[in-house]
Amino acid sequence: MTLDHNLDIFQTRFHNPSIFAIRSRTKFQGKLTDFCVPANSYFPPPQMLDLIGANMGDILKYYPDYAPVYQDCIAKLCGAPAENIVAANGVTEIITILCRDSGGPILTSVPTFGRWTDLPPDFDIPVHFVERVKERNFVIGADDVIARVKETGAQTVVICNPNNPTGAWFTGDDIAKLVRELAHIERLIIDESFIAFSDLTSAEALAIDSPNTIVVKSMGKSLGWHGIRLGYAVANKAIAADLRTKVPYWNINGLAGFVLKNIDQFRAQYDGSFAKVARDREYMYQQLQKVPGLTTYPSQGNFLFSELPQGVSGKQVRDILLEEYGLLIRECSNKAGSSESYLRSVVRVREDADKLVAALYEVLADVAPARAA
Amino acid sequence: MTLDHNLDIFQTRFHNPSIFAIRSRTKFQGKLTDFCVPANSYFPPPQMLDLIGANMGDILKYYPDYAPVYQDCIAKLCGAPAENIVAANGVTEIITILCRDSGGPILTSVPTFGRWTDLPPDFDIPVHFVERVKERNFVIGADDVIARVKETGAQTVVICNPNNPTGAWFTGDDIAKLVRELAHIERLIIDESFIAFSDLTSAEALAIDSPNTIVVKSMGKSLGWHGIRLGYAVANKAIAADLRTKVPYWNINGLAGFVLKNIDQFRAQYDGSFAKVARDREYMYQQLQKVPGLTTYPSQGNFLFSELPQGVSGKQVRDILLEEYGLLIRECSNKAGSSESYLRSVVRVREDADKLVAALYEVLADVAPARAA
Repeated sequence: MTLDHNLDIFQTRFHNPSIFAIRSRTKFQGKLTDFCVPANSYFPPPQMLDLIGANMGDILKYYPDYAPVYQDCIAKLCGAPAENIVAANGVTEIITILCRDSGGPILTSVPTFGRWTDLPPDFDIPVHFVERVKERNFVIGADDVIARVKETGAQTVVICNPNNPTGAWFTGDDIAKLVRELAHIERLIIDESFIAFSDLTSAEALAIDSPNTIVVKSMGKSLGWHGIRLGYAVANKAIAADLRTKVPYWNINGLAGFVLKNIDQFRAQYDGSFAKVARDREYMYQQLQKVPGLTTYPSQGNFLFSELPQGVSGKQVRDILLEEYGLLIRECSNKAGSSESYLRSVVRVREDADKLVAALYEVLADVAPARAA
Repeated sequence: MTLDHNLDIFQTRFHNPSIFAIRSRTKFQGKLTDFCVPANSYFPPPQMLDLIGANMGDILKYYPDYAPVYQDCIAKLCGAPAENIVAANGVTEIITILCRDSGGPILTSVPTFGRWTDLPPDFDIPVHFVERVKERNFVIGADDVIARVKETGAQTVVICNPNNPTGAWFTGDDIAKLVRELAHIERLIIDESFIAFSDLTSAEALAIDSPNTIVVKSMGKSLGWHGIRLGYAVANKAIAADLRTKVPYWNINGLAGFVLKNIDQFRAQYDGSFAKVARDREYMYQQLQKVPGLTTYPSQGNFLFSELPQGVSGKQVRDILLEEYGLLIRECSNKAGSSESYLRSVVRVREDADKLVAALYEVLADVAPARAA
């Protein structure tokens, strides 16, 4: 079952190859099951695709609306006032601006979302890390962050809650403490791209009254649509107004705008989808725990972070799962603070989780002894 | 037939209200005919919408590809090498970066595309103008631009070829002279967003070998889809590489990416569409010339620029055309260097052009004497 090479498609300087690139290159003949792109399994409903299809001519033909229309839509979704909201072409648009404009060193945790670790050097801005360690289930607390701010003189602090790819989270008390005790730095950024899948409370309300806190959120994860490019920031009025001058006009494409303007019709399914994912996460977590040699960590995201048995190559496991089983998972060696020993698997419905667990049983039984020998 | 007010929907600080806002507010009951959004009448073909519909699930679900994939697609379309291309979330994304990063005053012509005149002040960058005057059919030449560079010390020069909203153009000799004689300034930017509809040669080949020239191009006009958000820049390799670091990852949404990756299948219709629009432009130009009191100027874009009889309010004409006839045109008073006396009408098929011309006959016959009285 072993492969004699690592698939060249994964030799990318980017986060991960696109599904389109992978499909065109794998020798697996059937339909791939994707544990890599962290999309909501229970949204969008098919009726939403039908509605888009029926309106596609208009969606494409005309210029999108201007920003205030989308701020209003997002305000209805998240509850923050429209004047505190900045709509973006994916959260990465806002991340890029915030990294670029940071007036001093950036502090974030590792491992975390790659843009937060990889972008600051592109703008010649120093980046420091708080290390998340397996002995603590990759959990860090407010005090760890505050201590590192003192050590590094960081002016921008970025935390992801829950954190990607580890799934670890900050408590509400931790978040309140960070907002309170880091009010003197330039920016405290809380990336809540996966918070909808958790039982955590958003810091949006705290950000609105804070002098420096910005909550940023990708909507692709929650909407189940990463291709749509939609994200937003919530901050006090002055910060929000300033950020709005930094994004281009018409940054929200027509399709993303249409979805925002029509999500009301699907609000019950949207709101109800997250608890279903949380139940699937609990199931998948329990099943993964049973795989011999694999350690899987508690998560509040729609993904689970697992450590392979010592000496097992994550790249090899990934390639075998893809080529032999058609299962696509994220191997984490290209994430700062992680290594080839870690896999991130997106939470999918039970039937799919069972497939992954069964495959991991087989692959690890085969690969681990071979390595140990 | 006169209205006693200007429609409040047009009281916007933006370029123009969106079609969605207009539709929801006009009292006209039938289908609106849009002479405002400058989309290609002969593209996309219905089969392209069908192809999108059939793939919408994938388009939305997954992250788009990374930039190199889209550079390759654009290279095939325009003929410039992929390494000289920067793909963007609409040309406005690139315009915003270029204005923000200009190291000195910007010089452009007026009237022109609003982003070039309105953005520099947002970034505290002085902006100077070369005035286009009706006595010269709004034409300016290389010497006019070069003289103003000397007077103003401009470091960034922006010209649109053909120019929006006037339709006037620079000759190939003018462009070559500008590239040659302005090689000492920081940036010469040539906005060719409408060049596909003209018989002009793109300056892309010149830009590739130039130390400072950047050709930028919106694809929404040519593709007939403004909601898609797609544009690009062509420049020498170093400038292109630098610009690429300034746009966010995944700035091309999934739908725009899908269109780029599949346009090959529709290449014959795409390439053939522009000559059809040019024929319609000639027809519409001739018909508009016959409207008493209206002066319409030569154009190489897919729009025509017309001057109303003295004393006639463009806002009133616009509102009557919308409310009484369902015809939507662009009144140009909110463009620097223009006034309420000017209208921009997008080139549409003959049947639609006839409707507009007939309506203008009636409205001007009614409004002009009332004003003169």
